[in-house]
Amino acid sequence: MKNLLGGKGSNLCEMTKLGLPVPKGFVISTQACINFFDSNDFPEGLEQELNDSLMQLEKQTKKQFSGENPLLVSVRSGARTSMPGMMDTVLNLGLNEKTIKSMIEKTKNERFVLDSYRRFIQMFSNVVLNLEHDKFEEILEKEKQNTETTKDCDLTAESLKKIIKEYKNLVEQETKNTFPEEPKQQLILAVKAVFNSWNNKRAITYRKLNKIPDSWGTGVVIQEMVFGNLGETSGTGVCFTRNPSNGIKKLYGEFLLNAQGEDVVAGIRTPRIIAELNEVMPEVFEEFKSVCEKLEKHYKDMQDTEFTIEDKKLFLLQTRNGKRTGQAAVRIAVELVEEKLISKQEALLRINPLDLNQLLHKRIDPKQKLNEIALGLNASPGAASGRMFFDANTAEKESEKGNVILVRHETSPEDIHGMIASKGILTCRGGNTSHAAVVARGMGKPCVVGCEEIKIDYSTKTLKVEGTELNQGDFISIDGTTGKVFLGEIKLIEPEPYKFFSTILEWSDEIKTLGVRTNADTPKDAKKAVELGAKGIGLCRTEHMFFDAKRLPIVQKMILSSSFDERKKHLDELEKMQRKDFEEIFEAMDGFPVTIRLIDPPLHEFLPSKEKLLREINRLKRKRDLNNSDVLEEIAVKKALLIKIKELHEVNPMLGFRGCRIGIVYPEIIEMQTRAIAEAALNLKNKGLSPKPEIMIPLVGIAKELELSRKKVEKVLSDLIPENNIPIGTMIELPRAALTADEIAEHADFFSFGTNDLTQTTFGFSRDDVEGKFFNKYFEEKIFSVSPFVSVDISGVGKLMEIAVGHAKKAKENIKLGICGEHGGDPASIEFCHSLGLSYVSCSPFRVPIARLAAAQAKIKEKK
Amino acid sequence: MKNLLGGKGSNLCEMTKLGLPVPKGFVISTQACINFFDSNDFPEGLEQELNDSLMQLEKQTKKQFSGENPLLVSVRSGARTSMPGMMDTVLNLGLNEKTIKSMIEKTKNERFVLDSYRRFIQMFSNVVLNLEHDKFEEILEKEKQNTETTKDCDLTAESLKKIIKEYKNLVEQETKNTFPEEPKQQLILAVKAVFNSWNNKRAITYRKLNKIPDSWGTGVVIQEMVFGNLGETSGTGVCFTRNPSNGIKKLYGEFLLNAQGEDVVAGIRTPRIIAELNEVMPEVFEEFKSVCEKLEKHYKDMQDTEFTIEDKKLFLLQTRNGKRTGQAAVRIAVELVEEKLISKQEALLRINPLDLNQLLHKRIDPKQKLNEIALGLNASPGAASGRMFFDANTAEKESEKGNVILVRHETSPEDIHGMIASKGILTCRGGNTSHAAVVARGMGKPCVVGCEEIKIDYSTKTLKVEGTELNQGDFISIDGTTGKVFLGEIKLIEPEPYKFFSTILEWSDEIKTLGVRTNADTPKDAKKAVELGAKGIGLCRTEHMFFDAKRLPIVQKMILSSSFDERKKHLDELEKMQRKDFEEIFEAMDGFPVTIRLIDPPLHEFLPSKEKLLREINRLKRKRDLNNSDVLEEIAVKKALLIKIKELHEVNPMLGFRGCRIGIVYPEIIEMQTRAIAEAALNLKNKGLSPKPEIMIPLVGIAKELELSRKKVEKVLSDLIPENNIPIGTMIELPRAALTADEIAEHADFFSFGTNDLTQTTFGFSRDDVEGKFFNKYFEEKIFSVSPFVSVDISGVGKLMEIAVGHAKKAKENIKLGICGEHGGDPASIEFCHSLGLSYVSCSPFRVPIARLAAAQAKIKEKK
Repeated sequence: MKNLLGGKGSNLCEMTKLGLPVPKGFVISTQACINFFDSNDFPEGLEQELNDSLMQLEKQTKKQFSGENPLLVSVRSGARTSMPGMMDTVLNLGLNEKTIKSMIEKTKNERFVLDSYRRFIQMFSNVVLNLEHDKFEEILEKEKQNTETTKDCDLTAESLKKIIKEYKNLVEQETKNTFPEEPKQQLILAVKAVFNSWNNKRAITYRKLNKIPDSWGTGVVIQEMVFGNLGETSGTGVCFTRNPSNGIKKLYGEFLLNAQGEDVVAGIRTPRIIAELNEVMPEVFEEFKSVCEKLEKHYKDMQDTEFTIEDKKLFLLQTRNGKRTGQAAVRIAVELVEEKLISKQEALLRINPLDLNQLLHKRIDPKQKLNEIALGLNASPGAASGRMFFDANTAEKESEKGNVILVRHETSPEDIHGMIASKGILTCRGGNTSHAAVVARGMGKPCVVGCEEIKIDYSTKTLKVEGTELNQGDFISIDGTTGKVFLGEIKLIEPEPYKFFSTILEWSDEIKTLGVRTNADTPKDAKKAVELGAKGIGLCRTEHMFFDAKRLPIVQKMILSSSFDERKKHLDELEKMQRKDFEEIFEAMDGFPVTIRLIDPPLHEFLPSKEKLLREINRLKRKRDLNNSDVLEEIAVKKALLIKIKELHEVNPMLGFRGCRIGIVYPEIIEMQTRAIAEAALNLKNKGLSPKPEIMIPLVGIAKELELSRKKVEKVLSDLIPENNIPIGTMIELPRAALTADEIAEHADFFSFGTNDLTQTTFGFSRDDVEGKFFNKYFEEKIFSVSPFVSVDISGVGKLMEIAVGHAKKAKENIKLGICGEHGGDPASIEFCHSLGLSYVSCSPFRVPIARLAAAQAKIKEKK
Repeated sequence: MKNLLGGKGSNLCEMTKLGLPVPKGFVISTQACINFFDSNDFPEGLEQELNDSLMQLEKQTKKQFSGENPLLVSVRSGARTSMPGMMDTVLNLGLNEKTIKSMIEKTKNERFVLDSYRRFIQMFSNVVLNLEHDKFEEILEKEKQNTETTKDCDLTAESLKKIIKEYKNLVEQETKNTFPEEPKQQLILAVKAVFNSWNNKRAITYRKLNKIPDSWGTGVVIQEMVFGNLGETSGTGVCFTRNPSNGIKKLYGEFLLNAQGEDVVAGIRTPRIIAELNEVMPEVFEEFKSVCEKLEKHYKDMQDTEFTIEDKKLFLLQTRNGKRTGQAAVRIAVELVEEKLISKQEALLRINPLDLNQLLHKRIDPKQKLNEIALGLNASPGAASGRMFFDANTAEKESEKGNVILVRHETSPEDIHGMIASKGILTCRGGNTSHAAVVARGMGKPCVVGCEEIKIDYSTKTLKVEGTELNQGDFISIDGTTGKVFLGEIKLIEPEPYKFFSTILEWSDEIKTLGVRTNADTPKDAKKAVELGAKGIGLCRTEHMFFDAKRLPIVQKMILSSSFDERKKHLDELEKMQRKDFEEIFEAMDGFPVTIRLIDPPLHEFLPSKEKLLREINRLKRKRDLNNSDVLEEIAVKKALLIKIKELHEVNPMLGFRGCRIGIVYPEIIEMQTRAIAEAALNLKNKGLSPKPEIMIPLVGIAKELELSRKKVEKVLSDLIPENNIPIGTMIELPRAALTADEIAEHADFFSFGTNDLTQTTFGFSRDDVEGKFFNKYFEEKIFSVSPFVSVDISGVGKLMEIAVGHAKKAKENIKLGICGEHGGDPASIEFCHSLGLSYVSCSPFRVPIARLAAAQAKIKEKK
């Protein structure tokens, strides 16, 4: 029907068929439009049909064109697909010198009728007669000046009469014809004009942009005009069939008596809540309630409606599925199932998984005015508000007195205590994989990074943004879900446990086939993830354990060791600590698999920065110059450290000495880690628990790398665990790993796609250097619409994943395949992973519910 | 025949068939060996056959087993494929108490015969009787001590007799049997032992490693022993049929009278040149000459032979194709064609293209002792020798007094004048794409980079390596072809124009179908490349023009501009300079295509380093502290610059704001470059020349990037050149570009594979951080045998190239495809590019001849 009648026309017919009170009318088909273009004229018989339909409409409405109870109509375009605002519309058609008199009599509102007539002439002249809009505006403007009036609605009936006369003169002058009085003539001209508007410049451009064929043509919808402003028995309003902010099943809307749609929107008068309609017009209210029920039954969803009451008669002008908050979406979906309107599958498809974030994190109370001052990257969801401080120590101290936000250029492992003490973190550099972003996500703390508009001066303890300067201790707020930064303190809404949420997730688990694990490095994260439904850890990054303040010095000594024995000594110390970490994590994840990635980052990440050390050396040198202090030895030590750091310095650390490369050059490091894993597992087993470790070798690009690393790991395992069955696998995070996945699979029990790094290398994008920087330009230029770091780039990165999956399964049919990049928590990427046939996705704890729902949606869509 | 008789056996038969004087003998087939293992015993009939063959051998040699003119034989293994040293051999078989007497009589050399007998017993006992070698050595050692002798050859006949007796006692004691006297018995035991040696541990391991099937078995070669030490009418020697160092067709070898093979090798006596054999034994010499001719005719190549003369009778012991220098290889190949022994195609296949380097660059005179002190990366071929200096200014000044080598941690654009003044460049950091490497190759100057063993101290102007300390001004030498560094001054050989070289390249051009272009950024390079046969420029890097000392300040101002207008002003200045550059390059390449790559490197590469600036600021601060100098303003300026540099700082510049990304954010930069190209082309056209520019957009990963960039470039071109037909293309240097090459091809007239960056991203290897660092470990662990930056990694990077070529040709059949990475000069990679169907390869000027030959070889191999 849509193809023949256009979207608007068919929707109108649908509502009419349901017996809903919509303004009466009829539709001219798109075929008529196509014929019109073919023959360059009104197709044969169309005029007759138009007359017949019109006669029927007159009968139905008990109104007549040019009659005493005059029929006025709207003439609108309506293509198969909505093309909002692209084509033309004529309203109030049917007005002329005769009918306005009848209207005035009927409405007792001369001004209203004259204003409608004035608008009709102007609109018709512009759309149908192709006269310039501006010339009419000139006349209007002149009259306003003459009468010292500023607003259109303040013009008197007298003025309007004068204007109407001048409008008609203008039409006569320009067209050498009088303005058409006869409504039928008006109608035929209007229909032709709407047909022709299919080929106006706007519409052609829009079609090109949206790939809509030029051949479709438009339908024309002709509908009786209805008026809510015909007195105190008329009115207009908007109403949701359920509460869009919490989902409770109760009408939620407002109305105004004696008013038109514009009046509600303009906000000049205060509308009344919908329940009060019961007091004013109880029958209409009852009818409206029953209409809403019908609508919900038909559309099987909460509706957002517009209605008009013309002299106690209800007309539905529009209905559509209503927008809603995450909380409402969840409740409505569950209750529609309970009401047997939709199936569980349909219910799950109704919810945008990302909206679940609103149920998991603090969010900004929408009932307040916000002063947005900057936009950064949304690194970790949730909102936070507090006084800002620029260093970890002060932030920690001040946090005793109230909520604190830590604001820095970028964070480093030395800032951890400040991050723990803060409610949220804001940085002006770094991307979604920066230290701040990764740690904040792990902590479940709101975080905005890469907010380059903000300029911090550590020395003066001030922050400049958009010309205003803020001081340490001033209030600031961030929304990690959107990346927005606000001035001042704002009110937040706490997330609450919510039964409908649990129901949705239970249903998701019933349906989904894709497993959901979590990325967690600490027992706390692991526990949280289990709570949120994770069935294992897909990525446990061991190096984050190295960043602990007590361990970092040992790690540094290990790195700076100049001999194997020295390195071994420090590794032994670390082993004890790692073993304890693993024991705690295995315990939190008891019975579920825990994939532990061996050391991955470049070693220099664990050392102080060159700049910092240089600054310290220079400070010492100046001290020596000024006070002749004895700092020579101190300088020498620092200089030696500096030399080591320079040796380890890398131009492109992302592509340098990291991942499995470290274990190949220093096998003792991964041997230590393997030992810690094996012993932790043994200890727990002895306690009666069921630890299930899996060992993952990172950054493999060549099969031989995995073969060698695996040998080292297996040797340690078989020495410690006689019946060793710990799976050993690798990440697929380099293009070459994907391309040679068959060779690599021979040495792997499982693969886990590291789509963060895979995206970086496939595109040649360093997240740290692109996200906060030229990506905005790329969005602006429509080079992409969503960051490939948020949603898997299916045509590039996805292609590699597809190649890898194909190769891997060919080489080893039962190889386990997962994903542990951040894409593991993105619904579109989850759908893609499901279609690839992966076994599981792994994401940060707070993304687990999102992933569960998205996985279920993927399964449902696949069936369809 | 090889399968049945083994390699050695069939070769022996081949030489015999040619009528060459080889020691007479026969072969036991590999099939016999297989049967031996199957039946666990000597196969039926083999003993009889052995007897028959032996009888025939006795007839042929006129010697008899156990006779007065005793026949001695060697018994050797010989599998299908050479397995050098893996299986066993018995020499001098046939000696016993009786035959030694005859031998002594015949040779008049008792000591020699007794020593041979002693050796035979020891060898036979070890190989055949499985007795431990050490026990025999003990006996030998004791006798040497008793007689106060140090060398074996100084033992007297008396001592040898004593030893032989003790050896035999030992055998009897260990085996409970006397040492076998009967030669036939000796022979059967020896043949079984050689069979069995197929399954010794060494041989099994070797087969596993080299994937040789265990089922093949070995042949056994039994050959008459010949002796060159039977007096002054006997002798031995080695000889090349042509001179292996210059290829001149004249016997080149040496011989010793009354000597065995070992004596020539041992170097105790000075051998005589082969021509002198004519004086001593003219008939033998004539025979030898004719043998050499026959060998060359048969093997169609220069031969490296070993021969023995036993009592005026010539025996050929071995012949193989002789190793030779590049110069000799070229001459021999050409002359063999002239002699109608081989075809041009065969001639071209005979030459290792890389050996042509020896004809293009200075090389180390091999006739001198070298003191190698370190090994770095061979960044630019050729050798250089001179006094070393650690900074560009001193190097430039000192170069007036003699040859100079510039030695630095790494070079930067500010060192260019020092590099120009030096004969060679040595750095201790950086890889093959470091500034030093790239610039040196462009200049055709020897360069060794990433030589991490060398520690330079700029402050004391000293260099430490392997414990020795050198001072500025000391002599040092480098070989950029091998990456070796030598202490002191060394003698170099100049390359000379060489007619055979030109012939080879002419032939190459006749055959090859792959085009050869050059990577050149200067008119000088372009001219050199045309001289060496390049037919166009495949990569002209415009940014190297920016590094010029006069331009760098303008480039820096352009980068630091805070407004469009300011940036535009500096770009206008640069435009004039670039236009002139392009004019000169187009002129040098007149009529040939010149592919110009628009700006590629990250902008911060043009700014001073953060460290350097920090040092300067600190120097100023200390100056202020000490002297109260008025440097505040100077500090402020530097601090402002530092802030800009920090803003532009990137964590991974390889993957940051570079390539087409720059032109998308600052279109005015590529517009300026396009204008300079177009105007230069117009100016030359007006002078009657035929410039053929092609514009290349770097680092495209998304089709839309190219679409946008192309639009900007085309706009400028069509404004300037009404009938614009300048091709616009892109580099394929990111995995995503290869994977989506069909989409990208829609906007490209040509593709050029940037295999340097493609290798970096596919492997996740930053050249700067891996080559000089853990790559050595990777070679050691056999993770790869050749660096993927030297030869295209066919299974990973090559796979992407294949995907890209397939996609590109499907989308645009006639798209031009080339390669401009450094692999364009690597023979194996050229063969791969040929097989992919690329149109051309592009390489540095001095690689052009190598590429021409390699391209011809690829074509010839393909036909086969």
